[in-house]
Amino acid sequence: MSKKGIILLSGGLDSATVLSIAKSEGFDCYAMNINYQQRHASELIAAQKIADLMGVIEYKLVNIDLGWLDGSSLTNKSIKIPESPSEGIPSTYVPARNTLMLSFALAWAESIESQDIFIGVNAIDYSGYPDCRPEYIKSFEKMANLATKMGVENQKIKIHTPLINMTKSQIIEIGLANGVDYSQTISCYQASDDGLACGKCDSCRIRMQGFKTLAIKDPTQYI
Amino acid sequence: MSKKGIILLSGGLDSATVLSIAKSEGFDCYAMNINYQQRHASELIAAQKIADLMGVIEYKLVNIDLGWLDGSSLTNKSIKIPESPSEGIPSTYVPARNTLMLSFALAWAESIESQDIFIGVNAIDYSGYPDCRPEYIKSFEKMANLATKMGVENQKIKIHTPLINMTKSQIIEIGLANGVDYSQTISCYQASDDGLACGKCDSCRIRMQGFKTLAIKDPTQYI
Repeated sequence: MSKKGIILLSGGLDSATVLSIAKSEGFDCYAMNINYQQRHASELIAAQKIADLMGVIEYKLVNIDLGWLDGSSLTNKSIKIPESPSEGIPSTYVPARNTLMLSFALAWAESIESQDIFIGVNAIDYSGYPDCRPEYIKSFEKMANLATKMGVENQKIKIHTPLINMTKSQIIEIGLANGVDYSQTISCYQASDDGLACGKCDSCRIRMQGFKTLAIKDPTQYI
Repeated sequence: MSKKGIILLSGGLDSATVLSIAKSEGFDCYAMNINYQQRHASELIAAQKIADLMGVIEYKLVNIDLGWLDGSSLTNKSIKIPESPSEGIPSTYVPARNTLMLSFALAWAESIESQDIFIGVNAIDYSGYPDCRPEYIKSFEKMANLATKMGVENQKIKIHTPLINMTKSQIIEIGLANGVDYSQTISCYQASDDGLACGKCDSCRIRMQGFKTLAIKDPTQYI
């Protein structure tokens, strides 16, 4: 019997790889892109294109307004995106971001009777966000099973984080083996409307380093 | 020093009472109403009016689209709202509803540096939703403290559920003592646009019983 999997898909390198892994594990894939107004048009186009290329059953774009959130450079355009490594949690941290995204995925999962949610969090080559750590994911999963009718009826929900302990270059290797076309993905926090990456933000720097380690050309178009 | 509290406010009897309790405990109150398209105009007006009457610092209405969720009579208008008690979890259950609402509240809390979130869940006179149980709330609180910068920096976040072990009549007694004007609240799942309650749904029946037990006239206008 085929299994339904919900995949949080942003148009970036990590989530495209997660989608390829869920497919390789035999899941019927339902991709959900949570757009909290942080994205440029080019990134939304990238997510849709990846979903199409990889043959998802359904691609759902959910727009949420987080413009009222203070303190994050991803939701407040007046705060500059950092372009060099910093101590502690950077300003690109968005309060409760993964909790919100996983909650929408949980609602969809229960609605279509899927017990499997995939998210591309990573606790190695990452920016130090608290909601990317294994202990957070484990705790969300426990909460999800107490929150839902499915959980109560013992149809346990699992949060899959296949990338959590991988380096960026390991992620890229697996994605390439699974046929991911990384030229279609956009990882930059401040990509231009025509899809050019800045090459300077945390996300760009970590991505560039991953390709460099593998001595593979990054197909990203940088400014 | 005054403390900031986030109160999830729907325009109903329970959340209005919770707001009065938070105020009586000395919190500066920030009210958040999550509208998932289930509400009639009259209910949104009620929430705004209660927020005004009770002097909140800010009232924030967040609109989210859950129209794509299958299986709930609150988000899918083609499913009839049940008008008599049923076995098990009723069709008014919305997948991940409280998880979504608490997640938005969590984002706002961290954004304004509030460590206190109030929600009017109740596990006595209620409809049997899994996300109203104490074990769920405790689990969400634990997750919230792992998810956030505040939690990591040991500014612990608390989910307050002052009504969780109260009967409906106890809730009403406390609200009246705190000066809540229940004539301004609307509890019905299918209120008319001009604010008349059906008197038949779970929510109406539980509310009516609460007033009846106290031998107090329910100021709700029923059809």
